Amino acid sequence: MMKIYDFPRGPYPARVRIALGEKNLQSRVRFEMVDLYKGEHKTATFLATKNYSGTVPVLELEDGTLIAECTAITEYLDALDGAPTLTGRTPREKGLIHMMNKRAELELLDAISVYFHHATPGLGPDVEIYQNAEWGLRSRDKAIKGMHYFDGVLKAQDFVAGEFFSMADITVIGGLIFAGLLKLPVPAECEALQSWYARMQERPSVKNRVTMSENRVG
Amino acid sequence: MMKIYDFPRGPYPARVRIALGEKNLQSRVRFEMVDLYKGEHKTATFLATKNYSGTVPVLELEDGTLIAECTAITEYLDALDGAPTLTGRTPREKGLIHMMNKRAELELLDAISVYFHHATPGLGPDVEIYQNAEWGLRSRDKAIKGMHYFDGVLKAQDFVAGEFFSMADITVIGGLIFAGLLKLPVPAECEALQSWYARMQERPSVKNRVTMSENRVG
Repeated sequence: MMKIYDFPRGPYPARVRIALGEKNLQSRVRFEMVDLYKGEHKTATFLATKNYSGTVPVLELEDGTLIAECTAITEYLDALDGAPTLTGRTPREKGLIHMMNKRAELELLDAISVYFHHATPGLGPDVEIYQNAEWGLRSRDKAIKGMHYFDGVLKAQDFVAGEFFSMADITVIGGLIFAGLLKLPVPAECEALQSWYARMQERPSVKNRVTMSENRVG
Repeated sequence: MMKIYDFPRGPYPARVRIALGEKNLQSRVRFEMVDLYKGEHKTATFLATKNYSGTVPVLELEDGTLIAECTAITEYLDALDGAPTLTGRTPREKGLIHMMNKRAELELLDAISVYFHHATPGLGPDVEIYQNAEWGLRSRDKAIKGMHYFDGVLKAQDFVAGEFFSMADITVIGGLIFAGLLKLPVPAECEALQSWYARMQERPSVKNRVTMSENRVG
């Protein structure tokens, strides 16, 4: 069985949990909790043996191979059955999905993460040993602007990368999950983004992402 | 014919130019120069019509579809002939290549870019309208540490993501091109990284990446 090092309510872990749900792979993995508030993802051992970048989630295959980074894990999971649904089938789909996925990181999810770690108490003083508040606040403003950008995208099409659900939707969902945890509201005028997000929260993969592991750990 | 908006000597444009060379697609594209030192990638028109994130390269397909972000463009180009060589064939290859590609961005190329734009004159005062020098210097230190990390990787294997050349090598090459432009030397003790880079510079795709467009523009 594969193992995933994660933190059940984390926004990045949510991306992989949603991908697992979409691909119906829940029964193929077990989760191992890494307590971010205790800095377990920043210990010398974790950095040396699990993920140099000190983040979760990390997927560990049965042969011990480690795959970190949500996009990489999603590529792996989506390819397992030979029938990709999240990462694109044609060259054009792959290109557009990867573009919008990266844009969702740059302009929304990663920006909110920088805000959290640099301009709020973040994971607490023992973990946040360096903060740059000015950079954090600037990143927050970038994320709000990003919400307006994705609102415009979703006015014109049903999903973030076009006419079907993909990895790019998952990454925007991750951004809005993070925003929700931080009480950073989606601006009221972003109606298309709000209505897309309401639709997304109805998807079983999104709705059941946290309980997935509560059912399985132990 | 496809079009690529880029800046011939830029480190990110280099990633796509190398991918084009590896896939032997040079004759399928023409380049349009976006003068970064004039801020042409930050104009309201460029942001609204080419790339919201204000970066190059951007690939424009014959039907007008725009694909920004190097990883996305590489996914597109690599899939065109149905025989991917840069982005992986098996799930495991895809996962490892995307992980190492992202790590090369996070820990090296993007960190050097932040250093350039925030703690050096960058593209000049008219373009660099906001700088956070402390963040820039911290990013430089992260990149130096990243060089040591990739040195360790290349001590253990011939290429960044394993036993063959991939998109992840291209991204590390982009990082070292950027470091070279900024006179940020690879530490002398990083012998495996240095010897790998010497090998990479012998590849025609790497060697001919700039002249590719000089041959074709006009």
